[in-house]
Amino acid sequence: MKIGIYGYGNLARGVECASQRADDITLAAVFSRRDPASVKTLTGVPVFPAADVLRFKDEFDVLVICGGSATDLPKMTPTLARDFNVVDSFDTHADIPQHFDAVDAAARAGGKTALISGGWDPGMFSLARVYASAILPGSKSYTFWGRGVSQGHSDAVRRIPGVLDARQYTVPVPAALEAVRAGEQPELSTREKHTRECYVVAEPGADLTAIERAIKTMPKYFDEYDTTVTFITEEEMRRDHSALPHGGSVITSGVTGLSDENKQVIEYRLALDSNPEFTGSVLVALARAVGRMNARGDVGCKTVLDVPPAMLSPLSAEELRRKML
Amino acid sequence: MKIGIYGYGNLARGVECASQRADDITLAAVFSRRDPASVKTLTGVPVFPAADVLRFKDEFDVLVICGGSATDLPKMTPTLARDFNVVDSFDTHADIPQHFDAVDAAARAGGKTALISGGWDPGMFSLARVYASAILPGSKSYTFWGRGVSQGHSDAVRRIPGVLDARQYTVPVPAALEAVRAGEQPELSTREKHTRECYVVAEPGADLTAIERAIKTMPKYFDEYDTTVTFITEEEMRRDHSALPHGGSVITSGVTGLSDENKQVIEYRLALDSNPEFTGSVLVALARAVGRMNARGDVGCKTVLDVPPAMLSPLSAEELRRKML
Repeated sequence: MKIGIYGYGNLARGVECASQRADDITLAAVFSRRDPASVKTLTGVPVFPAADVLRFKDEFDVLVICGGSATDLPKMTPTLARDFNVVDSFDTHADIPQHFDAVDAAARAGGKTALISGGWDPGMFSLARVYASAILPGSKSYTFWGRGVSQGHSDAVRRIPGVLDARQYTVPVPAALEAVRAGEQPELSTREKHTRECYVVAEPGADLTAIERAIKTMPKYFDEYDTTVTFITEEEMRRDHSALPHGGSVITSGVTGLSDENKQVIEYRLALDSNPEFTGSVLVALARAVGRMNARGDVGCKTVLDVPPAMLSPLSAEELRRKML
Repeated sequence: MKIGIYGYGNLARGVECASQRADDITLAAVFSRRDPASVKTLTGVPVFPAADVLRFKDEFDVLVICGGSATDLPKMTPTLARDFNVVDSFDTHADIPQHFDAVDAAARAGGKTALISGGWDPGMFSLARVYASAILPGSKSYTFWGRGVSQGHSDAVRRIPGVLDARQYTVPVPAALEAVRAGEQPELSTREKHTRECYVVAEPGADLTAIERAIKTMPKYFDEYDTTVTFITEEEMRRDHSALPHGGSVITSGVTGLSDENKQVIEYRLALDSNPEFTGSVLVALARAVGRMNARGDVGCKTVLDVPPAMLSPLSAEELRRKML
């Protein structure tokens, strides 16, 4: 199977690394809106102008679209889904239905298969929520994120005047995790579920008190959380905070028995040294499934919830039953 | 959707309880090889002789077969799959390919849909292994069971002369769990992964030393494990060991990045107060999927690996995308 990557940032490099490990998948090209001469890929895979992508219409089985959810993907995926089987990682939860409809119409018009919102949340965490709630009707699912770097929150801090660089870690509250794991089904406010840790490099002479206040009171991003702000040097930022770890847990807690007498707890947990490389690995497995679904005539827009799990694996159905079931 | 249960033991009672919680599913009848007059169901659902099941050929959408894997299911499932959509929990891993072929032939001949090896291992744990290994090629998956009651091992101890009753708990070794969770990919022997705890009620005057030796040296069941044997009274057995808890973890540990520099760990964990009620809950969700797959013409034998996750849920595809993705 031949895949292409459209857009070349952190996530795309994760897809590039992951495709190296998949024996049945070859990454054939990267498309970038930047000048191709200025883009150096990790593995030396050739780079072409994004504007030329249609010339490669019959060259790829699947195109993995690595754009941002805010402005890129709502345009890119519906546009490309008419001419390519595509996978994206659209993660604005509230806008998924709308994105789905736009991509579905395009993919059906072109006889292509598209999968949106791949990755781990949405993606693998969605699967965990759906399986667990189907098994345990009336259960409660809790999603905890972290400890890990939130790019969106890091960017928000970087936009504050006087901030040179920033890294924000989302951290689950241990007592909340513990109560949920014990099957207690607590009601948890936003503040009770996660704390936020900010590491900030300030401009020389900046008003640190003002920066800290600006962070802690920022609506939506920080005001509903207990946030700590630590000022560090550029050197410390490079040394201690250059990785992009993340992860978290979906914990579902329900009861069974005629009188609710038995607690049942299901947890799906990720501990990731590299968020973009893991997300890229999920997208490559999904690209395999999308190529297969299209080959059997299953067109239109899909999500992870529509994909038979066996389709993600390079193993045959027989091998899976023999070795993995 | 109307379902029936074929066979009425602990697992069947779990299915019965679970069907009460599924608004879209009605349990219409139980079939038993015992005299129906002697079988009292938890919810008062009627009991019919197993021999009469064919008279109900058109009355059910799906029949959940609750027999043992050793001798019942290899006969029951292929026989019933010709006339009913069926779900079973066949769990003899090595014989799954053979069971699959027999059930597949029967189901195809009858235009029915069958799902074998539902439950949690095989079942949800199989899903965890397949998803994780597809995402992380070259990773290692470790399956830990417990702390929980193994019925097979409890039965094996009960067959030792001088033993009145016994309960065996399988317990993961904490250090092994910890190393695997840390992404260390250790090589673990059978002994290093699990210990076994036996609680035994002996006949008055029995040779306790002989019983303990018989347990600890029993081939396959105990000889490769560190086993502890504790003699207790009938009263203590009833008071402390009448529940059937179980659970465990599938932990997959892999690396990503061009030089394997990033560890990625995925864990799927179950903590179950009641093993049969949880397994029954999985079977009911799978019965929903089997009914739907048959309705859309997807016949033959399936496993959890073939079922699009959305099919397990009572929610519509639109609701799932809006609420769960």
